[in-house]
Amino acid sequence: MKINVVKNVLDANNRIAQENRKLFDEKNIYVINLMSSPGAGKTTLVEETIKALKDRFRIAVIEGDIQDTCDADRIAKLDIPVTQINTGGACHIDGNMVRETFPGFDLNNIDFIINENVGNLVCPAEFSIGENIKVMILSTPEGADKPMKYPLMFKESTALIINKIDLLPYVDFNMEKGVKDAKSINPDLNIFEVSCKTGDGLDKWIAWLTLQIDNFKG
Amino acid sequence: MKINVVKNVLDANNRIAQENRKLFDEKNIYVINLMSSPGAGKTTLVEETIKALKDRFRIAVIEGDIQDTCDADRIAKLDIPVTQINTGGACHIDGNMVRETFPGFDLNNIDFIINENVGNLVCPAEFSIGENIKVMILSTPEGADKPMKYPLMFKESTALIINKIDLLPYVDFNMEKGVKDAKSINPDLNIFEVSCKTGDGLDKWIAWLTLQIDNFKG
Repeated sequence: MKINVVKNVLDANNRIAQENRKLFDEKNIYVINLMSSPGAGKTTLVEETIKALKDRFRIAVIEGDIQDTCDADRIAKLDIPVTQINTGGACHIDGNMVRETFPGFDLNNIDFIINENVGNLVCPAEFSIGENIKVMILSTPEGADKPMKYPLMFKESTALIINKIDLLPYVDFNMEKGVKDAKSINPDLNIFEVSCKTGDGLDKWIAWLTLQIDNFKG
Repeated sequence: MKINVVKNVLDANNRIAQENRKLFDEKNIYVINLMSSPGAGKTTLVEETIKALKDRFRIAVIEGDIQDTCDADRIAKLDIPVTQINTGGACHIDGNMVRETFPGFDLNNIDFIINENVGNLVCPAEFSIGENIKVMILSTPEGADKPMKYPLMFKESTALIINKIDLLPYVDFNMEKGVKDAKSINPDLNIFEVSCKTGDGLDKWIAWLTLQIDNFKG
């Protein structure tokens, strides 16, 4: 019974996600759906990505949280349009929640939307919002066993950012295993080893992302 | 519509959880439901707790994972009865999944069950399994903003273990804020600052837990 309920919810979501996608295509907006465990560094990556690309693209951000607006407050300081979604009890952002943000944005003057999902390594991967690509962060303190334990998100993502490499000397993170297992689940995964704290590796992520957006916008 | 679905699922789960609780009371088994983000250190805490208490109590473990058995394999090495629940897509353990583990255990010869939930800071807090108490782990690399961002789990938990204090010199974790915010959500929360890696602080957790089990068993 429960599986049927979930399936209906997912079907209904996919229909809305397709409508969102159609609108994004009409407006020529590239959208990434950013996902990770709580505390892996999503908001910091969003901040660093905005700083690197705000002169090149008109960026907007959707911030998903169970409650509170502290992440949206951080983004607003960068002078970027941001809308907070408070999901209440829900552990992910879905297509309809994203649709609800549209009236708050000037979609004719946006090139690139970053959707920062609720911190959760499971459910967000199941709900499309009409994004171009899903991007996930795995932080080194979480451990290298995560690809095999939470495979769906690794499978659904186009890019994997391995964050907090500055902590590698202090945590038990086997980079070789983490990368190998992630690639075994998703051979096409683009992997970036970065530290949002020191800035190491962010240049490669930014260069790759710029190329994706340029290719989309033509 | 979606809220109604979730509500029905939760009501149905609560009925099963109450049946589990009745059975645990008959068998005089103390049960904790251990929850956290992925990679916060649940399995390592379970291992350390078993090592400290296996001569005093007959312990069994339920391991919840989306897939794979690597955590259960770690527990089995300690000569403790363990049953793996592979939830498939589900991001939490529910009462019925726990009921399904009963045939694999000799419930007449168990004092204490540790249920290690799926790594997720949201959904597991909504699903009772018939436990005596919920215990959560917050690890320092996740950041001290987590109580305000994921309040339900902090509200539902009787004990909060702040793990990976060995990393405090290398991460931006404001212990004072984390403790204060957690207490503002749940004034009765019992908080333990530990490092499962170095062993620091584990003695206080073990002493407190022993007292809870002794008080229950009478």
